[in-house]
Amino acid sequence: VRTVAATTRPHPGLMQDNPLSKIPTLVLDDGTALYDSRVICEYLDGLAGGGRLFPAAGKARLTALRRQALGDGMLDFLLLLRNERERAHVSEPHVATFTTKKQAVLAAFEQEAGDLSASAFDIGHVGIGGALCYLDFRFADEDWRKHHPGIARWHAAFCARPSVRATEPVDDS
Amino acid sequence: VRTVAATTRPHPGLMQDNPLSKIPTLVLDDGTALYDSRVICEYLDGLAGGGRLFPAAGKARLTALRRQALGDGMLDFLLLLRNERERAHVSEPHVATFTTKKQAVLAAFEQEAGDLSASAFDIGHVGIGGALCYLDFRFADEDWRKHHPGIARWHAAFCARPSVRATEPVDDS
Repeated sequence: VRTVAATTRPHPGLMQDNPLSKIPTLVLDDGTALYDSRVICEYLDGLAGGGRLFPAAGKARLTALRRQALGDGMLDFLLLLRNERERAHVSEPHVATFTTKKQAVLAAFEQEAGDLSASAFDIGHVGIGGALCYLDFRFADEDWRKHHPGIARWHAAFCARPSVRATEPVDDS
Repeated sequence: VRTVAATTRPHPGLMQDNPLSKIPTLVLDDGTALYDSRVICEYLDGLAGGGRLFPAAGKARLTALRRQALGDGMLDFLLLLRNERERAHVSEPHVATFTTKKQAVLAAFEQEAGDLSASAFDIGHVGIGGALCYLDFRFADEDWRKHHPGIARWHAAFCARPSVRATEPVDDS
């Protein structure tokens, strides 16, 4: 179900299922509502037999979950940055902070690029790859690839995956 | 280590370990950095043998994770609300949105109060209880208990737990 979840427009219908008024929210056939993204991903992984995108334990699991949190965290401040730019009174300290974080996260991605390429595809890859797709979608003028060639190369391969191509974000016309 | 992580003051030292410049961030003896809160909680649960605060599977696990996400989500918008009030130009639509979400989440907590009391203590209880502690800490003038007697009763018992009493938030003097 397509639902508008904008920063300053809480959605009464969505809030029946998720009082945070955020997407994604998944309502199961029995009426159970699941959120947020991380919980839904784990649920879907379980439907697929479990352990498909979530390593079961140990260092691999912690690394995957940390990367997922890093991608999630980047999405959070990119949403805030986009929202900031649309305010009547833009706060320059906020824009500067989000921009500093954006650069720091891109540098961290670049450092991890080799290991991302070398390791089995998991929820950490989804988190980082998805955050970069959002960067391309909403900050299309941002030439992040120029100074981050390693993660740019990794992301090109990520975007070529059938699952990613099938879920490319689009604006309503 | 005490670290200042304010919304508009990215912390260069912290960002070496967590480019999001957010707390909590846990650095292990081998230098591995873990974040965010959810990942650290799972790590600590593992140290304690696993399955102590995280139900292993099934509906109990999904409910616990959803509640944890709900508490986390409430913390996120309460931080934004507090930050909004400190801006030079306060955006009333933002304040109104965060306030609407606050009321919706409190109503959802109230609906879950009976089940929270009846079910085994898990990470969902920690997430909801902690969010309410933050509400008391930073929005002390908010009399949320008046119209939410069920969750207020549950929260009184939560606050009496030794682990909660030992970690009460305090302001630097």
